[in-house]
Amino acid sequence: MNTFGHWFRVTTWGESHGPALGAVIDGLPAGMPLDESVIQPALDRRRPGQSRLVTPRAEADRVVIEAGVFEGRTTGAPVSLLVRNGDVDSSKYANLKDTWRPSHADYTYEAKYGFRDWRGGARASARETVSRVAAGAVALQMLRLRYPIEVVAWVDTVGALGCSVDPETVTQADVDQNDVRCPDAEAAARFEEHISDVRRQKDSVGGIIGCVIRGLPAGWGEPVFGKLEGELARAMLSLPASKGFEIGSGFAGTQLRGSEHNDAFEVRDGRVRTTTNRSGGIQGGISNGESVVFRVAFKPVATIFQPQETVNRAGETVSLEMKGRHDPCVLPRAVPIVEAMALLVLADAALAQTARSGWQGALDN
Amino acid sequence: MNTFGHWFRVTTWGESHGPALGAVIDGLPAGMPLDESVIQPALDRRRPGQSRLVTPRAEADRVVIEAGVFEGRTTGAPVSLLVRNGDVDSSKYANLKDTWRPSHADYTYEAKYGFRDWRGGARASARETVSRVAAGAVALQMLRLRYPIEVVAWVDTVGALGCSVDPETVTQADVDQNDVRCPDAEAAARFEEHISDVRRQKDSVGGIIGCVIRGLPAGWGEPVFGKLEGELARAMLSLPASKGFEIGSGFAGTQLRGSEHNDAFEVRDGRVRTTTNRSGGIQGGISNGESVVFRVAFKPVATIFQPQETVNRAGETVSLEMKGRHDPCVLPRAVPIVEAMALLVLADAALAQTARSGWQGALDN
Amino acid sequence: MNTFGHWFRVTTWGESHGPALGAVIDGLPAGMPLDESVIQPALDRRRPGQSRLVTPRAEADRVVIEAGVFEGRTTGAPVSLLVRNGDVDSSKYANLKDTWRPSHADYTYEAKYGFRDWRGGARASARETVSRVAAGAVALQMLRLRYPIEVVAWVDTVGALGCSVDPETVTQADVDQNDVRCPDAEAAARFEEHISDVRRQKDSVGGIIGCVIRGLPAGWGEPVFGKLEGELARAMLSLPASKGFEIGSGFAGTQLRGSEHNDAFEVRDGRVRTTTNRSGGIQGGISNGESVVFRVAFKPVATIFQPQETVNRAGETVSLEMKGRHDPCVLPRAVPIVEAMALLVLADAALAQTARSGWQGALDN
Amino acid sequence: MNTFGHWFRVTTWGESHGPALGAVIDGLPAGMPLDESVIQPALDRRRPGQSRLVTPRAEADRVVIEAGVFEGRTTGAPVSLLVRNGDVDSSKYANLKDTWRPSHADYTYEAKYGFRDWRGGARASARETVSRVAAGAVALQMLRLRYPIEVVAWVDTVGALGCSVDPETVTQADVDQNDVRCPDAEAAARFEEHISDVRRQKDSVGGIIGCVIRGLPAGWGEPVFGKLEGELARAMLSLPASKGFEIGSGFAGTQLRGSEHNDAFEVRDGRVRTTTNRSGGIQGGISNGESVVFRVAFKPVATIFQPQETVNRAGETVSLEMKGRHDPCVLPRAVPIVEAMALLVLADAALAQTARSGWQGALDN
Repeated sequence: MNTFGHWFRVTTWGESHGPALGAVIDGLPAGMPLDESVIQPALDRRRPGQSRLVTPRAEADRVVIEAGVFEGRTTGAPVSLLVRNGDVDSSKYANLKDTWRPSHADYTYEAKYGFRDWRGGARASARETVSRVAAGAVALQMLRLRYPIEVVAWVDTVGALGCSVDPETVTQADVDQNDVRCPDAEAAARFEEHISDVRRQKDSVGGIIGCVIRGLPAGWGEPVFGKLEGELARAMLSLPASKGFEIGSGFAGTQLRGSEHNDAFEVRDGRVRTTTNRSGGIQGGISNGESVVFRVAFKPVATIFQPQETVNRAGETVSLEMKGRHDPCVLPRAVPIVEAMALLVLADAALAQTARSGWQGALDN
Repeated sequence: MNTFGHWFRVTTWGESHGPALGAVIDGLPAGMPLDESVIQPALDRRRPGQSRLVTPRAEADRVVIEAGVFEGRTTGAPVSLLVRNGDVDSSKYANLKDTWRPSHADYTYEAKYGFRDWRGGARASARETVSRVAAGAVALQMLRLRYPIEVVAWVDTVGALGCSVDPETVTQADVDQNDVRCPDAEAAARFEEHISDVRRQKDSVGGIIGCVIRGLPAGWGEPVFGKLEGELARAMLSLPASKGFEIGSGFAGTQLRGSEHNDAFEVRDGRVRTTTNRSGGIQGGISNGESVVFRVAFKPVATIFQPQETVNRAGETVSLEMKGRHDPCVLPRAVPIVEAMALLVLADAALAQTARSGWQGALDN
Repeated sequence: MNTFGHWFRVTTWGESHGPALGAVIDGLPAGMPLDESVIQPALDRRRPGQSRLVTPRAEADRVVIEAGVFEGRTTGAPVSLLVRNGDVDSSKYANLKDTWRPSHADYTYEAKYGFRDWRGGARASARETVSRVAAGAVALQMLRLRYPIEVVAWVDTVGALGCSVDPETVTQADVDQNDVRCPDAEAAARFEEHISDVRRQKDSVGGIIGCVIRGLPAGWGEPVFGKLEGELARAMLSLPASKGFEIGSGFAGTQLRGSEHNDAFEVRDGRVRTTTNRSGGIQGGISNGESVVFRVAFKPVATIFQPQETVNRAGETVSLEMKGRHDPCVLPRAVPIVEAMALLVLADAALAQTARSGWQGALDN
Repeated sequence: MNTFGHWFRVTTWGESHGPALGAVIDGLPAGMPLDESVIQPALDRRRPGQSRLVTPRAEADRVVIEAGVFEGRTTGAPVSLLVRNGDVDSSKYANLKDTWRPSHADYTYEAKYGFRDWRGGARASARETVSRVAAGAVALQMLRLRYPIEVVAWVDTVGALGCSVDPETVTQADVDQNDVRCPDAEAAARFEEHISDVRRQKDSVGGIIGCVIRGLPAGWGEPVFGKLEGELARAMLSLPASKGFEIGSGFAGTQLRGSEHNDAFEVRDGRVRTTTNRSGGIQGGISNGESVVFRVAFKPVATIFQPQETVNRAGETVSLEMKGRHDPCVLPRAVPIVEAMALLVLADAALAQTARSGWQGALDN
């Protein structure tokens, strides 16, 4: 199932070591300004380690709009985005041809499909998220036509280390001011040091991404099976390496009493607000006008540079040692991906709500 | 959006104080034995406080199959299930007509729909899950035709209290041996006492449901946007009062190193297994043949019997005091609901995988 | 696949000799006036031979709204409609248990499902259209909130007999002024006489339904695979006994030259119009503001009261003679059913277009 | 709506004068042999006038598989097909920028989208069917894994001229033996002459495509809203210039009596067959094992080289005269396109039926 969304539909395709990746976006309004420059910055933000490199790989991950745009505006036809893969050397994966890497998808793909593209994870690679990030940028362009919506994600924890971030004020600029994408500078330094330690130990480390959606009107989300938090949860758990999702008070909130947890209503600045936001901006699956705040857990990446025991296709126990330049912590790169998936969810909810409220509006006249 | 599933499609309808609730199930195989007796036990298990009551409300929540079954077997036509609501007294909700209960969906429904059925939560009520539980029983009946799949959920925490449960061996009978549905008898006693305390304090308390799916073959789940964990996450976050989902190592696993977290492969009992199961039975969105283990966070229920400040439709600050017999902890009743949603996810994945493998099988000949 | 529509989703269920039939409608705006009186007239119009009977079966086909309406208005929750089947005598179908009626769906249902509800056609019976007609009435109620859309169908031919109808002016009242539902009174008399002849001959006869949609704005329909004429074609070919669909000039138009067929544009009454309407109101899958005119072919009903040779489940050749009171011509009863399906298509297109234009509108500001 | 199919999902994109066209195919089994050589012949067959040209435009319409295939076999990931548009000269369309061509989609696209890509019809151009034909070839490859299905279409009428074709025996080779793609050589000669006359008169002419599906097992098709004839009808009416669809006896059959029309069952060659095939191979929406025979009406193409009156965006009456090399009859080129759409319908029905029967099969054990 490679299509996401019911009203705003994004279909993605492509493998890590295939010729290209892409996304087809269906459901966009016509007349919306769109060209590659709207999308490219999001892809640049997703690329690995770009901030550190003296010579950025400027040629990499160039998006091309192949359809759906005429004279700089969408036409209503599906927008097709394409990103060519660079010259990738698959030979270094040849030793994985018959061996399943622990906690990768090698074995399950083979169990499902009876057959496997063993080059670099193929469709299961995090490289697949190129398509999502590109589509997310288009979703944002659409949302901004009508709403001052902001989606900001950040690295909230690395291993056991945490930070302090105010979801009501944090900006993407705050997040991008360091390589680990944690807007708390002091914590960021600790995160970086920890990740360096882990790299030296040829190990990897997990963590949690925090994300906030601000400026969302009340009323978005489609009960019962299209609840906004449910769609967000699915979106986030569709990301490689993600293991959990929580919204508002989340797992910690299970330890509160109702009297502590309930968000009292008040009238503030002329509109209905809640005094606290343990609900995380959603009640009954519908946005309440407060910020939507959620967190996504990412496991330590499975690729480590220590010898590991595993099994090959012949059923023999073998020792596997991987080589290469994999990052020991995916969290910084997951930041724009989490944002992109949130944007796809919002674009879908937006179209549903527009259709509904457009008709309800007729009743008021 | 009141339909769940792409292959195995369940459409639910009904409000807490409307005449009835129901579910229409589309995609079932024909010839499957089905009558009300297959479904009724699941509904009985869902009903509130039945185990404690001296006189069980035996008349309540009787399911009727209105279509799709002939001479005790499914025909391939959609199965329509109907459960009549008893004579419900809506008058006690009349004071909520113009007042939004804190952390309920009253305000958001009104924001979305411009209008609200104020009787007992209506579509946002947990009563809506009657339809899900009924449909889940039908899904289980289908799954059992081909697979020895077991789905067992239990109350894993209440507030800050935990328990000890082995997901590999716990049974539904273990779970049902006490009213709080915790298979750890010692913990169950503590849970019950805690809930009683909370009730006396006119407060409510949250907790976590654990759930295991055993007997699932390797190969189920549809990358990229139909990953099994993503579908489970959406299913669980579509439940009233749920605030989080985690699979396998979940949030705690973010604190592990890759070398600690990776699940090594081995050949055990003649098939490929993992030595540990931090992946929670899924890798790359596809089941790996191990048990699928996940947890769902539920907030403390919003209905408490203490005065709360809120706002009415006129924008005035008012004090709200609710009356009635609401349970201070929904966790025990959420157990069969979590199981039902897991079953709906599995039934959908099962049909997708049957279609796929049916064709792949042709290649082997 | 028992759900119709992507935005305005109608799920139907029920068999001819089961306890009830129903429809669940998802996607309606909230606040729309709705009660049974909106729907019942459409069902009354659909019932067989009601105009002729001295004692109308007033008790039959009573629709009940089981969910989604509160105080006479839709709530945004799914609307569930239920129509109980009367006490039906299935025994007269017992002889069909093991015998396949020629040109009915008995054999194909058994080939597909390996098993068959043999009572009166079950899900394949035209009785299933009760659900469609009920849902169509709700769709019309929604469409009328914003648009002066009229859908009028009529019996255009019976066997080789035709009539003269002006699609720009014909009304439902014109159609209903006689039992054969042909607004051309002279032709209607010939139709009636012909049908009587056919009845006397224990035979059946086919014909064509004409249908016009007036008042449709320009711009509805979703290229490429959601073209308005494609959705109408599918809707009509989903009806029992239908064998063909044509729009505008249709099959006859294939014999024209382009110079004869093209609809020239002009400005008329201050807006862009076409001087002719061979396109049938749709160009490139999108409505052009002219009337949508289409025709649907219905075969002679398969139930005839002459002996027919067929095969039974044992593979033996047998002679089959049916008894009962089946109408020799379904065309008059198909009139409201064709209208209902057109309304479902329009409601779906309407929501899609509302969402799209709502966003495009933002660009103009 | 640019996705076709529910189980076998094809998403197409691209405009006539954009950089490329493509299709993304989701739902394919893994391990299926696939490379460009499977698809290219279908595209070659679709190209205009290739048989007549001394120097075929061999470079045109080259399909490239961009994803989903590894070492010559499908992987289960979506297959992405891409066809680059040649260097197209849009300047000749510049005069259409502000003028709506009669019976084209210029006006309706502008009415819908408020904005129009005026280059050669853009998304509404028949060039869009490149994507469909490419996807159809992949669908056929899948179907052939398990079933000896053959789909053969031919030009059945041109204007008022007809031909004689036996759907039980006609082959694609028969069809391709002449440029007008009519397997009746004598009729083909008349068709060619007629088309030449029409060309000389700077006019265009319509006609009917006949199509047969042979080798289809009994039991395919999903009642009620997924009936096989309904899906075929939608598929055909989604094609540019199509105005009608009929199956089996079609419109002519409406003039028969039931006693003439009914298809008697018999046991022939050891299986249940019908003695006649007025049903066109489908009863109750499900295939009955006989050949599926249908016809599609195509209007005379709107592009003619005579002056026509129309209106421009300023609302002025203007005379329009088109220049270029458009074919006066699209029928020959529509042949592979009709086949492609039939194949997409069959692939979708096949997966649905595989899932269903896989489970029903479990009941027999």
